[in-house]
Amino acid sequence: MDIYTSKQIMQAFRPERAAALLREGLIAYAAGRMQLPPMQRIHFDAVAADCVVKSGYLEGDKVFVVKVWSGFEHNAEQGLDSRHGMLLVCSARTGEPQALLLDKGWLTAQRTALTGRLVAEAMAPPTVDAIGLLGCGQQAQLQLEALASVQTCRQIWVWGRNLQRLQAFCEPFAARGYRMRPTLDARQLAEACQLIVCCTPARQPLLQAEWIAAGTHITAVGADRSGRQELAAGLVARADALVADCAAQVLEYGEFSHALNAGLIRHEQVAELGDVLAGRQPGRRAASDITIASLSGFAA
Amino acid sequence: MDIYTSKQIMQAFRPERAAALLREGLIAYAAGRMQLPPMQRIHFDAVAADCVVKSGYLEGDKVFVVKVWSGFEHNAEQGLDSRHGMLLVCSARTGEPQALLLDKGWLTAQRTALTGRLVAEAMAPPTVDAIGLLGCGQQAQLQLEALASVQTCRQIWVWGRNLQRLQAFCEPFAARGYRMRPTLDARQLAEACQLIVCCTPARQPLLQAEWIAAGTHITAVGADRSGRQELAAGLVARADALVADCAAQVLEYGEFSHALNAGLIRHEQVAELGDVLAGRQPGRRAASDITIASLSGFAA
Repeated sequence: MDIYTSKQIMQAFRPERAAALLREGLIAYAAGRMQLPPMQRIHFDAVAADCVVKSGYLEGDKVFVVKVWSGFEHNAEQGLDSRHGMLLVCSARTGEPQALLLDKGWLTAQRTALTGRLVAEAMAPPTVDAIGLLGCGQQAQLQLEALASVQTCRQIWVWGRNLQRLQAFCEPFAARGYRMRPTLDARQLAEACQLIVCCTPARQPLLQAEWIAAGTHITAVGADRSGRQELAAGLVARADALVADCAAQVLEYGEFSHALNAGLIRHEQVAELGDVLAGRQPGRRAASDITIASLSGFAA
Repeated sequence: MDIYTSKQIMQAFRPERAAALLREGLIAYAAGRMQLPPMQRIHFDAVAADCVVKSGYLEGDKVFVVKVWSGFEHNAEQGLDSRHGMLLVCSARTGEPQALLLDKGWLTAQRTALTGRLVAEAMAPPTVDAIGLLGCGQQAQLQLEALASVQTCRQIWVWGRNLQRLQAFCEPFAARGYRMRPTLDARQLAEACQLIVCCTPARQPLLQAEWIAAGTHITAVGADRSGRQELAAGLVARADALVADCAAQVLEYGEFSHALNAGLIRHEQVAELGDVLAGRQPGRRAASDITIASLSGFAA
């Protein structure tokens, strides 16, 4: 078994290749060609942390993968990494472990960002004058980096609750020629942007239906577990297209669950991202559509 | 993270310590003090193999564990190991991976055998003149080894379908002074033995109700998945005590599921092994009881 450190993984990582494989995986999942047992989650209430185990196998592939990921946010207070994770790659022909990727959750974060990029390619409106980011953490940074190869727009609004952290987020992008617009007012951002990516652990809606103009696309990545919500249920209900990386999860506990539980949307309104990427389901139909994608994260 | 090979693990393994910890774990599980997400299973139909992922956390413990185990039986035809497995041990305080145990499924096999020993201690009749083993593979060998420290009986009946394999199984034990009785007739074994351990992948009952005398205890370890069955439903129905390592599993797809589905037993008749070990539920009440324990395997 080969063991790879996160440094080796970062050096070997090819975003274009990863995006192409991710696209294949999402399409295979939507077509029912992937085994994805329900994820396991262990809670550590004493430290408000959790660990998730996800495994998956694309039928016919040479390997299958088991991923262990944990988020211990309070670790930061002790100067420790707050994310841990690894991927175990085994032969689907002999079961033999082939590689252990000690990525500390790095690949998970990259994968989420690349999924955001695939969504933007498929669903963003034809003209984007400004991109909006809600949240100014690592995932917001990765989403913006990932969008750079599929969007020419460099005018970026960033919303957060802490001006200092917002400014720290903006500086390196500004140095590279981005026009950065930090704001504490999510409405201001929503009204200015045609492509919005939400990457926060919010438990109350950050965006309201009446703030969003026709032609806007929103990708929400924060609601990867029960209790999280970035978008008002009324905004989800108002959208012309709803797309989920894994409809079952997103409707059970993800971003669309609130609108579903309130009776504002129906299961059938939600398309699988893989079906949209494969052209089997429409994403955006008209330039004036409001479209929303929710990413809950899964093994595909 | 420390990485241990199976050789290192075998050298460091202390059966008495492991049995004591296993006992604690089973008791904690039965008392609801353990988080055990449903196991994940991936099927590889092309090679009739599967992989299971089990994770568990005993509330308040310093670590949690994720186990990956796979059985690729056809590997043997190519001279390869047919079992693979490893355990990942992580801190429950920081999430940090602490140890990777590359045991190739060895610890899983030991754990099953030690559970059989705990069951025998709690449920075997006071007098055992002969022990019976159904199956003559690795698990039968480990069960017999594990029983040696809690049973003085050295008269052993072993049933299998292949006389040559039976004899090969018996030789090393005979050399150590055991009186070994290989047989192709399960009824002969059943009628001679007061403590019977079934460790086969049988899909049809091997033992019938009318063969089993009063005072017999049977431990069945083969039915760890749907489709497996070692005991006739009528035998399970006839028992005076039914005990399961994990009642939910054993009743859903394990050894007791057949009798339950046939309406011969009720959920309430099945006690958790941990409750029996803790004395919260009776195992054997009288020397003349027929008692049955079914082990389906889980993370505790």
